[in-house]
Amino acid sequence: MNFSSDNVSPICPEILAAIGAASEAALPYGADDASRQLDAAFSDLFGTTVAVVPVATGTAANLVGLSALVSPFGGVACHEAAHINRTESTGVAFYGNGAKLMTMDGPSGKLEPATLDAFLARENTHGMHSVDPECVAITQATEFGTIYDVDEVQAIGKTTRDHGMKFFMDGARFANAVAALECHPADITWKAGLDVLSFGATKNGAMAVDAIILFDPSLRGRVEKARKRGGHLFSKHRYLAVQLLAYVKDDLWLRNASHANIAAQALCRALETLGARAAFTPQGNELFMHMTDELAEHLRKAGLVFRPWPSIGPDAWRFVASWNSPIEAIRALPQTI
Amino acid sequence: MNFSSDNVSPICPEILAAIGAASEAALPYGADDASRQLDAAFSDLFGTTVAVVPVATGTAANLVGLSALVSPFGGVACHEAAHINRTESTGVAFYGNGAKLMTMDGPSGKLEPATLDAFLARENTHGMHSVDPECVAITQATEFGTIYDVDEVQAIGKTTRDHGMKFFMDGARFANAVAALECHPADITWKAGLDVLSFGATKNGAMAVDAIILFDPSLRGRVEKARKRGGHLFSKHRYLAVQLLAYVKDDLWLRNASHANIAAQALCRALETLGARAAFTPQGNELFMHMTDELAEHLRKAGLVFRPWPSIGPDAWRFVASWNSPIEAIRALPQTI
Amino acid sequence: MNFSSDNVSPICPEILAAIGAASEAALPYGADDASRQLDAAFSDLFGTTVAVVPVATGTAANLVGLSALVSPFGGVACHEAAHINRTESTGVAFYGNGAKLMTMDGPSGKLEPATLDAFLARENTHGMHSVDPECVAITQATEFGTIYDVDEVQAIGKTTRDHGMKFFMDGARFANAVAALECHPADITWKAGLDVLSFGATKNGAMAVDAIILFDPSLRGRVEKARKRGGHLFSKHRYLAVQLLAYVKDDLWLRNASHANIAAQALCRALETLGARAAFTPQGNELFMHMTDELAEHLRKAGLVFRPWPSIGPDAWRFVASWNSPIEAIRALPQTI
Amino acid sequence: MNFSSDNVSPICPEILAAIGAASEAALPYGADDASRQLDAAFSDLFGTTVAVVPVATGTAANLVGLSALVSPFGGVACHEAAHINRTESTGVAFYGNGAKLMTMDGPSGKLEPATLDAFLARENTHGMHSVDPECVAITQATEFGTIYDVDEVQAIGKTTRDHGMKFFMDGARFANAVAALECHPADITWKAGLDVLSFGATKNGAMAVDAIILFDPSLRGRVEKARKRGGHLFSKHRYLAVQLLAYVKDDLWLRNASHANIAAQALCRALETLGARAAFTPQGNELFMHMTDELAEHLRKAGLVFRPWPSIGPDAWRFVASWNSPIEAIRALPQTI
Repeated sequence: MNFSSDNVSPICPEILAAIGAASEAALPYGADDASRQLDAAFSDLFGTTVAVVPVATGTAANLVGLSALVSPFGGVACHEAAHINRTESTGVAFYGNGAKLMTMDGPSGKLEPATLDAFLARENTHGMHSVDPECVAITQATEFGTIYDVDEVQAIGKTTRDHGMKFFMDGARFANAVAALECHPADITWKAGLDVLSFGATKNGAMAVDAIILFDPSLRGRVEKARKRGGHLFSKHRYLAVQLLAYVKDDLWLRNASHANIAAQALCRALETLGARAAFTPQGNELFMHMTDELAEHLRKAGLVFRPWPSIGPDAWRFVASWNSPIEAIRALPQTI
Repeated sequence: MNFSSDNVSPICPEILAAIGAASEAALPYGADDASRQLDAAFSDLFGTTVAVVPVATGTAANLVGLSALVSPFGGVACHEAAHINRTESTGVAFYGNGAKLMTMDGPSGKLEPATLDAFLARENTHGMHSVDPECVAITQATEFGTIYDVDEVQAIGKTTRDHGMKFFMDGARFANAVAALECHPADITWKAGLDVLSFGATKNGAMAVDAIILFDPSLRGRVEKARKRGGHLFSKHRYLAVQLLAYVKDDLWLRNASHANIAAQALCRALETLGARAAFTPQGNELFMHMTDELAEHLRKAGLVFRPWPSIGPDAWRFVASWNSPIEAIRALPQTI
Repeated sequence: MNFSSDNVSPICPEILAAIGAASEAALPYGADDASRQLDAAFSDLFGTTVAVVPVATGTAANLVGLSALVSPFGGVACHEAAHINRTESTGVAFYGNGAKLMTMDGPSGKLEPATLDAFLARENTHGMHSVDPECVAITQATEFGTIYDVDEVQAIGKTTRDHGMKFFMDGARFANAVAALECHPADITWKAGLDVLSFGATKNGAMAVDAIILFDPSLRGRVEKARKRGGHLFSKHRYLAVQLLAYVKDDLWLRNASHANIAAQALCRALETLGARAAFTPQGNELFMHMTDELAEHLRKAGLVFRPWPSIGPDAWRFVASWNSPIEAIRALPQTI
Repeated sequence: MNFSSDNVSPICPEILAAIGAASEAALPYGADDASRQLDAAFSDLFGTTVAVVPVATGTAANLVGLSALVSPFGGVACHEAAHINRTESTGVAFYGNGAKLMTMDGPSGKLEPATLDAFLARENTHGMHSVDPECVAITQATEFGTIYDVDEVQAIGKTTRDHGMKFFMDGARFANAVAALECHPADITWKAGLDVLSFGATKNGAMAVDAIILFDPSLRGRVEKARKRGGHLFSKHRYLAVQLLAYVKDDLWLRNASHANIAAQALCRALETLGARAAFTPQGNELFMHMTDELAEHLRKAGLVFRPWPSIGPDAWRFVASWNSPIEAIRALPQTI
């Protein structure tokens, strides 16, 4: 049982089948039939007109998407633990032509509206000496496995708008969030004032595709130019498209995510039974557990793979469940190890 | 029969099978078994120790690879028609942190050593006001379907080295060149002084992978950082690796390329029989043909797909054959249309 | 007699006096009285409302000014010999966040409208793969000492506008052009559709100041941010302002330039008398002369300082006259050496 | 009495005289006699061989100097209040081609060795996902008017070296620090392992010049290219050089700084007598005082100019003394207002 990350899981069968079925010649660079269905498919999914620009990695989706919302002189306000701040090299400045990350803290990996409001009020000097924030970015589900509820996203969106700023969401695990919240995807995106969403699929059953969802379709030209310049425009673009179409067909994205979430909850209970303690109340498919070295060693010997997470604490470990995690075997763990 | 580009062709069966077979959990970011075989596989293929850094697109392979060979204040000398100059947006400056393209002309899409020598002598002022070239880049096979022979690459390499510069090759159709030259891949790479090769697979049967081949493995750290920052590091890195391993196994890359080359030669003869004239002597899988509008229309009605190519002339058209082009049907064209 | 460049000349007395007179405490960063007079002074000079952003060097004026007219994905079309292309490192890409120089040739250092029109028509593909030109830049007076007449600037401006592009002028020697043309500065700037002018003063009697003149004052915010980020915002901004105010007061800028132009014409006649031949008909303060090595050596021994200019020819030399060149002594040269 | 900043003060007489005396023709771009004396003058001053690259602003000195010490993928560790972090737009990323600021807190505007040590240990992952710090930057005197003593700089330098990193100092008020410490300038620079110093003059009597001092002269080529590309290379370079030569001649830089420091100490005592309280023990020429609105208003009416400084507190104000602040009048303030 490998819980080291959700990116250790393979392609799920439906998406592999879609790749295999794309065996005809097709026009390149997004002019093929599958690619041309993307806007409609995601407009349906979100209940509003969106433009879709797919790329092969979540980092590319974040960086290319953000680049449309911030000037070379501006800042992106985010949580200190945000993936864009901690795990994407100097990519925000690279794609943003110098744009700066401006971080604040917040409990359980979440920005809080009041903190954000004070931060934006203090940092936005409307000047040229310092860097004014121009965009607020949150991660949903967060890097700590927690999930902003609908009201929380709406409140962050309102604060962001009140300060005249753009709103971006890193949705590498967006499916896990929607599945957990049982909300409509609109509720935590455009209805909360979101401009751009990085809609993850890679971690949740795809081979390699995340979609930049533009709730303001007029951003498409700029985003497509940034994608091309970044080397992210696939010539065989249909192979990105068919992954995404299969991913949203018949709610596969939500089914996969629900499976992973349920597996994570089950794992949490199993580990608690064995003596571990959750650092945050798990809501999606990521767990951060405090446990003794003895328990960790015991789990390893039983075949579980997972990683230490020292940024949370010396006794903290991360477990990530996937679309194909064996739920029954997880539930049986307290009895079987 | 679709000759609009080699990127209209689908994944070839061997590579699709390799993707499907990668169904186990595997470590991310290149730590998996398949990824760890890449260096050895390509070191075998080239007959020298290389480091391999795969990415999903040819543009990314070019831009990330080149970025290791030029400073923010330097230039990349290339043919005016080079893909990096004409078809990759402002990507060279982007990944090169400002590095400049410096172009010269040459017959049939090729740089000539004497022209290059004079160009480098004139432009390299060892100063700070103007831009000194720091790297020479060629495309093999060229953008005009021609191929540098072994002596030509060696001569370009020598001139480049004589001026103290780095040497890069855009090998989006490297397989077609090696297949046509019937040489060892070493002959037109490290034995000619090449530093970095962008080794194409996408156009020749893969889904989406090109490999940055570093003949100086000490460049790996810098290239991997540039790849990560550019958003090109796959989490499910094994899906890049298995494509490449299948591509070089049992000479699939050369078999696919030979097929495409033969198809292109056959198509050239068929079109000449029908009254067209080749703009350049075709050597790889790309043809540029002069023909009347009447003939073009006739071919279209017969089901051939191909594109006008006005940069060569108002009556010029491009045809590109692929790993799966139907050679017999192509040979029969003069009789069947 | 030093003709190696106009930047070898010292500060002219009026401007030195203005620097010395600025001895009071004054608010920094442009909030002082002198700085606040700049917009009005230059709006008067040009006969239209302009915004003025001063910097200390001509390269900074070009690069910061251009950066407001081109996107990171776009190109700046200019003459191959343009200072921005040949003598400003990779600065256009640096300040332009990747923007690319796209060059064409033209007689006597000038772009020709028909050439420009064909160039823009061919290069502007409205696409994302290649780089579309977004701005046209000319140098007035040109790098070869020639001067676009009013009709020529108007024609370039019209062609530029017809293609929907922005228009920039490198006016490092703008004063010499206006003095030679005896036109109103409006005639070759905003009345020709110019967006941004780099208005030179350093070469013509100032210590170190060139002004970015924005004929679209709404560009000010972006330009000021680019200036600050580039490190070009003076804290003691008044010392830029007082130089500029003194420079335009009582037509000092035109008097200095006329002096230099007359000196250059006189030098041309003197050198022709001695056997040299002008490469271009000199109009401003720069001369490019063909002459024998013997004559060059003779002139050197007589105390003249000047530079070889191999890009024009192996027997070509450049002479630049300044605001303080000794006209009478120049006229007497054929008799005195 | 204007205490709003030290950049409100004019050029001091010695430097103005030096500018006026530079009335001969001189070679451009640093080839003149004055410019060629800089390396020797500053090597004397520091007691070691240095290379000197002057620019016109402190921001340029910081940004160009730092750019030689950090890669596009690396970070610059500094105090949260550092000028490079708070007051230089996105300049560090701009000149650093994406390099990131990584901040920590510390009392009185200073980094503490233990904090720095823990920060570097935690942040330097030797990886490619996150940003590794590559350089430590401190400000001397600090943004809060405090001054690292010799031992403190040495300790920061040792920690920096122990982690294998480069060491940079923003010395916009370096003169005030040396004057206050009564140390040799070597003690807080190269003897503490410093690589690059931004040596300020503008705030302390010059018109517009700060010098990048390279204690590793092999950095010169790279720094000069960055300066040129940034538009900071003066054609009339001698006007930068003569300011610097006059500034260090006969210890003018220290005399000016001592004057300003003494004035600030006197002002502090005067304001304390009037009821204000220093936020930090003032050591250089900057004061941050807590006081009532009534006292502030009283001072304003008496003709003092100074600025609120809300980042320290709602009742905090900044006062900056200069080379020409009237010490006797300051001492008399409690009696005269």
